[in-house]
Amino acid sequence: MASTLNINTSRINADLMESCQWGSTPDGGMNRLTLNDDDRRVREWFISQVKKYGCTVRVDAVGNIFATRPGTNNDLPPIGLGSHLDTQPAGGKYDGIVGVHSALEVLKSLHDNKVQTYAPIAVINWTNEEGARFPPAMLGSGVWAGKFSPEYAYERTDLKGVKLGDELERIGFKGNVPASREANPLSAHYEVHIEQGPVLEAENKPIGVVTGVQAISWFNVELRGREQHCGTTPMDRRADTLLTAAQMIVAINGIALSIPGSLASVAVINSTPQSINTLASVVQFNIDARAKDDETLARLEAALEKKCHEISKEAGVEIRTWDRFWNAKRTVFNERMVGFVRETATENGFGNRDIQSGAGHDSVYTASRVPTSMIFIRCKGGISHNPAEYSSSEDIAAGAQVLLGATLKYDAYLKSQVK
Amino acid sequence: MASTLNINTSRINADLMESCQWGSTPDGGMNRLTLNDDDRRVREWFISQVKKYGCTVRVDAVGNIFATRPGTNNDLPPIGLGSHLDTQPAGGKYDGIVGVHSALEVLKSLHDNKVQTYAPIAVINWTNEEGARFPPAMLGSGVWAGKFSPEYAYERTDLKGVKLGDELERIGFKGNVPASREANPLSAHYEVHIEQGPVLEAENKPIGVVTGVQAISWFNVELRGREQHCGTTPMDRRADTLLTAAQMIVAINGIALSIPGSLASVAVINSTPQSINTLASVVQFNIDARAKDDETLARLEAALEKKCHEISKEAGVEIRTWDRFWNAKRTVFNERMVGFVRETATENGFGNRDIQSGAGHDSVYTASRVPTSMIFIRCKGGISHNPAEYSSSEDIAAGAQVLLGATLKYDAYLKSQVK
Repeated sequence: MASTLNINTSRINADLMESCQWGSTPDGGMNRLTLNDDDRRVREWFISQVKKYGCTVRVDAVGNIFATRPGTNNDLPPIGLGSHLDTQPAGGKYDGIVGVHSALEVLKSLHDNKVQTYAPIAVINWTNEEGARFPPAMLGSGVWAGKFSPEYAYERTDLKGVKLGDELERIGFKGNVPASREANPLSAHYEVHIEQGPVLEAENKPIGVVTGVQAISWFNVELRGREQHCGTTPMDRRADTLLTAAQMIVAINGIALSIPGSLASVAVINSTPQSINTLASVVQFNIDARAKDDETLARLEAALEKKCHEISKEAGVEIRTWDRFWNAKRTVFNERMVGFVRETATENGFGNRDIQSGAGHDSVYTASRVPTSMIFIRCKGGISHNPAEYSSSEDIAAGAQVLLGATLKYDAYLKSQVK
Repeated sequence: MASTLNINTSRINADLMESCQWGSTPDGGMNRLTLNDDDRRVREWFISQVKKYGCTVRVDAVGNIFATRPGTNNDLPPIGLGSHLDTQPAGGKYDGIVGVHSALEVLKSLHDNKVQTYAPIAVINWTNEEGARFPPAMLGSGVWAGKFSPEYAYERTDLKGVKLGDELERIGFKGNVPASREANPLSAHYEVHIEQGPVLEAENKPIGVVTGVQAISWFNVELRGREQHCGTTPMDRRADTLLTAAQMIVAINGIALSIPGSLASVAVINSTPQSINTLASVVQFNIDARAKDDETLARLEAALEKKCHEISKEAGVEIRTWDRFWNAKRTVFNERMVGFVRETATENGFGNRDIQSGAGHDSVYTASRVPTSMIFIRCKGGISHNPAEYSSSEDIAAGAQVLLGATLKYDAYLKSQVK
């Protein structure tokens, strides 16, 4: 069936540009923070679109929108095709948005071709995936999966002290359907997303077959040495906190390079006092540690901690804080669904490779409850969360085409399972 | 003569504690920012003291106070004995203050012993040495030396936007004597100061014979790499700005260690954006580079620049800014005055060593105009600009004793020069 149905390249790209009128910035990027007026407008546009294509719309109590097109067996929960329409404050037109548009385009293709699926299909816009206005990220899908309560979500505040619950009411998207997987069950969840990394581009392949999401830990580290005068303290009589931090940063990089399948990054640093001629006494930095599996992450973490403590001891600079404040186990996507993505990409002649997601997505939470997988599309330079974010029209179309084919394969599978 | 005149250990230490009542903090430190009400009170106390010992007082247009005790030849400009009574906001009782008290104690000893010097003696309190409230540092002595105009000094503002000139008027210390070396000539300048470093303590010597002040350069460096997602960007496809900065900081330390007589410190760093999972794209840091002489500093600077550019090239991270925004040549103190300090310390049985000052002092500016040298006294742990700053009563007395002896030797030298 995949070979006969084709998505419409110009339509999906025109739709994408149309919806990006709300929140676009002069530099070509987007600023559509969750639940602001531009988010309200694009949500209204989304609903007007799906209604044209025969969907019923349910908005849950945290603003997740489920637009459901009936199948022939409506006793089955729908196959969800979701992502998010919110962006970073200086984000691009592709992260999340392309996923919702791919789902919309699947809906439109099915409609044009008068294809009746076996299971219903639900196009989903998850609320507050970015978490840029209301941390934490992936909040709407997290509530759906039961990781957070709706009340927890309502109490999240932005920098001005405005609550997410109040903004949901203000823009009219606090729905009357409970926010839960029980009230809005799904049979499965597929998501198209830009890679946000440079691997597909480097290998000249438009499609990534996402097999799972890396294990992740975040650390906060605080070092304390001595405030000393840079002009009067001999080089060999210092407890130089910033030098010690620098040695750790270099070592952290070296350790990640030496452990296959691991990543370790220090992206944030702060030193106190900010005085050119007084050695810093306090330096704070964060470590973002990731690995292909939980065992590798544990190995990485142990090596980082051991080495940093050795450096600390040698330098006479104390590690005052070594706090792993967040850890997420590896997510493994549903093997059958991953296989359908791989098959469809190959059948359509799209170069593809298996890839693990380095970043979190709504699909991490859906995967904790229902069969889930993702389709990555190539993006320019691996750039994301940036106005320069870009994927070509052809790659966007390829992603939607793979979503369409894989969805139909999964739908056929669901049908085959009924006795 | 030095062997017969002794300064009064209990008096100088009691005086020090008395004057530190203005601006003292509960932690044992001081907060006597230039020209605040505590600075006014200690200035008034200083004037009341010197008047008791037969001095005439002149306050110049930037608040420098010259308290002059006549000699037998008052056609000669006075020998200046100076330092400063202002402190850092979280400073100690010793930096600067001990220098003024040493000069006061010399005055009192001469008076007690009815010693008439050949040249007049001027006890000097220089305005705004710290520069903590009104940058730059050493402003009063800098105006005297003609490095800054009085108008430039008046326009310096504190964090609240208050001008130095207005504060001088408010506390009644904008004197009617022009602020210049021509209006207030000196024959020479001696200054006692705490070492602010750990060398004397480590060698168990109370006195440092200061031969000069290191050459200093300050650099501002800005690196620009790529904002990349820490989870999606492979370790080998990064332009990691903070990692590059860390490599430079480690290299800068190594270079200074390899060049005898040099120091290089990175005490300030800032990274942007402050996002745990986004590699920093901009990192700014400063380098404080010092050396025993100008040639060594030039060698150090060349080595730092070469190595950092190599690291930058290797990392694919651009050095956007490499700005040497301040340079001070080495100051060499007057050989005869330095010799008198060394002789006096040795005659009095005070362990001593030649030492270069790592930090700037009012004596750097006086040295640009008249024969100058300094006497360092040992301080605990090399700690300075901190409430924990400390020098023992005995070491304070030793410093004043050396100041007294060296001053009398220089006075005898001046007398010997007159035909």
